[in-house]
Amino acid sequence: MSLNFSYYMPTRILFGPGKLADLATTEHLPGKKALIVIGASGSMQKLGYLGRVVDYLRQNGVEAVVYDRILPNPVAEHVEEGAALARRNQCDFVLGLGGGSTIDSAKSIAVMAVNPGLYWDYVHGGSGGGKTPPHRALPIVAITTTAGTGTEADPWTVITKSDTQEKIGWGSKDTFPALSIVDPELMLSVPPRTTAYTGMDAFFHSVEAYLATVRQPASDHLALEAIGLIARYLPAAVRDGNDLEARTQLAWANTEAGICESLSSCISHHSMEHAVSAFHPEVAHGAGLTMLSVAYFTYLAERCLPERFVAMAEAMGESTAALPEAVKPFAFITALQKLIDASGLADEKLSGYGVRREELPALAENSFHTMGGLYQVTPVPLSLAEVTQIYENAYR
Amino acid sequence: MSLNFSYYMPTRILFGPGKLADLATTEHLPGKKALIVIGASGSMQKLGYLGRVVDYLRQNGVEAVVYDRILPNPVAEHVEEGAALARRNQCDFVLGLGGGSTIDSAKSIAVMAVNPGLYWDYVHGGSGGGKTPPHRALPIVAITTTAGTGTEADPWTVITKSDTQEKIGWGSKDTFPALSIVDPELMLSVPPRTTAYTGMDAFFHSVEAYLATVRQPASDHLALEAIGLIARYLPAAVRDGNDLEARTQLAWANTEAGICESLSSCISHHSMEHAVSAFHPEVAHGAGLTMLSVAYFTYLAERCLPERFVAMAEAMGESTAALPEAVKPFAFITALQKLIDASGLADEKLSGYGVRREELPALAENSFHTMGGLYQVTPVPLSLAEVTQIYENAYR
Ligand SMILES: [Fe+2]
Ligand SMILES: [Fe+2]
Repeated sequence: MSLNFSYYMPTRILFGPGKLADLATTEHLPGKKALIVIGASGSMQKLGYLGRVVDYLRQNGVEAVVYDRILPNPVAEHVEEGAALARRNQCDFVLGLGGGSTIDSAKSIAVMAVNPGLYWDYVHGGSGGGKTPPHRALPIVAITTTAGTGTEADPWTVITKSDTQEKIGWGSKDTFPALSIVDPELMLSVPPRTTAYTGMDAFFHSVEAYLATVRQPASDHLALEAIGLIARYLPAAVRDGNDLEARTQLAWANTEAGICESLSSCISHHSMEHAVSAFHPEVAHGAGLTMLSVAYFTYLAERCLPERFVAMAEAMGESTAALPEAVKPFAFITALQKLIDASGLADEKLSGYGVRREELPALAENSFHTMGGLYQVTPVPLSLAEVTQIYENAYR
Repeated sequence: MSLNFSYYMPTRILFGPGKLADLATTEHLPGKKALIVIGASGSMQKLGYLGRVVDYLRQNGVEAVVYDRILPNPVAEHVEEGAALARRNQCDFVLGLGGGSTIDSAKSIAVMAVNPGLYWDYVHGGSGGGKTPPHRALPIVAITTTAGTGTEADPWTVITKSDTQEKIGWGSKDTFPALSIVDPELMLSVPPRTTAYTGMDAFFHSVEAYLATVRQPASDHLALEAIGLIARYLPAAVRDGNDLEARTQLAWANTEAGICESLSSCISHHSMEHAVSAFHPEVAHGAGLTMLSVAYFTYLAERCLPERFVAMAEAMGESTAALPEAVKPFAFITALQKLIDASGLADEKLSGYGVRREELPALAENSFHTMGGLYQVTPVPLSLAEVTQIYENAYR
């Protein structure tokens, strides 16, 4: 493969147990007045994280205003509401504290705090206006409390338009966080099922970045390490949420999967999942990916990149040396199934969420619409009929 | 090892054969009027690189002024002269085209174009004033024509003060290039000896970043890949400068070694070399490192990180499985010696440059002065007596 790529991931990441306290002293805060964005559940208050952040900022000479209405599937209205609050208070940066939904919202609020019109004017795809924001977003700080989406190390933000139920990802060079703090101690409180879902999301980011046609050497290294770390530590973190070593390794795996989202890309596995959770919003993203994964990656392993499937299997602890050549790539499927089982997700099935066999062709069609671009970076061409077949193969 | 680190490398890198042409179309140029900084030798003109860059910039709507006086060991006077030219022409970014000396000068010129006083006012260490520049540097674009210092992916700039003969490195978050173009086709013209010297420099950046106490997972991956690539491709590029595959792999290895300089650090091997070339300016940096390396890394391998020396040896193609445990780390020394020989540098010796055995204690002392900080990130403490001993061991 000839080397030809673009490398860009400008976020400064402070990583390590206890790193949250660095907020009080870091010279890398991008302003003097923060809009802190948190979820509506109240957990950031209950866990004491919000209080600590406000205190640390004050010690560092930074005032803060709090916007606390973000939903698990964040919506454009709240982006605009948060942006108005930032404008009213003359905030000069936006700090997202929480999981992917909160940090994504912080990114989008940072764009809208300094730009006219509605958020959807700037979204590309679906009914989005596709405009370029005339002004650069406010600087963004991300403090992640789950090891999930990797959004702390990529420019992507996924927001839903409530009336049309469109859930669209978007991003630009201005929506990379300027500063991200990844403190695994903040993740000790994540419950087992969420740990499993978010861990599998990070796992598939890594796998997909490793297979995407736009992969590059730096994403390959990070993806392969993340794949190995998640295979090893996700079951441990699901079993014992207080295992700080497992949480730390998973936090790093998730962050490096995020870097991979910046250097490489997801592939159509993600398009297929987005169709599922668009039709059935109660399906968690990580659950949807997991339910499709064995069928999807088996289909790919039959058709392309055998040496990459072998490398992933080996990274996950499978020994392939003794296997016949043609069988080796499928050691990855074996390892994937083991990981799903060990993470307590063996019982996840599409029918359990009310997905009916008859809607699978519609899901396939939908997967080409909202995130159709990911088919172009998938290592094999997939027709509508083939995608429908993969859904069929995954269905139970 | 508990994970605790800071990750930051904000440069956008466009990598690949032919990538120079992207200058004409990229949307990532940071301004409308460039100061182009090149060396005094005339080679950028002769090779046609300067003409191409000026043309591509014009196609992209960017005017350019050229400053062409940079010496192989760049001096502070030229930084100030270039900065005055940038100010006079109201340039809004600085583009360095050439090897490490030119790009380092471009970085320093970008600082001085917008800041008062003399360059040395802002240098830390030696007789430098240690001030913080009141203004952010102009944005920097780096186009590298050698696979040498990795400066296209790090913030460091090494400039010499002529009257005191101090050669000091410096850098800040503002001296990362905003954009770097790494086009291996531009490196086909580098002569064999320079190829060997610059390749060994990149090699030691990788080795040192892999051993430094401030290493982190991302630098580990990149360093280990670079070590393997250089071991494999440097001898080929020295033998046949037109081997584009070898040039491309070396260019990437050098760039990832540069990223390692941003995420991790060099260690005291570099301090020891800087002392040699400060006393004997005719010693090329890569030659100095090579002449000290076997003694230096043997001393380290006897004392620390055996598993890291084994990993480096394996990355270089040595098989250590059958060796007794205590001997395994020294397989790296075997591989290093093979690389030096295969790169045509076996004849390099300190006495050949007029270094006398009696001056070795003075070199040891000097190495603690100008770049003494690197001893603090070296994995074992080294006393003055020990450093003198390493020079003695290297001497022939
Ligand atoms: Fe995802
Ligand atoms: Fe060097």
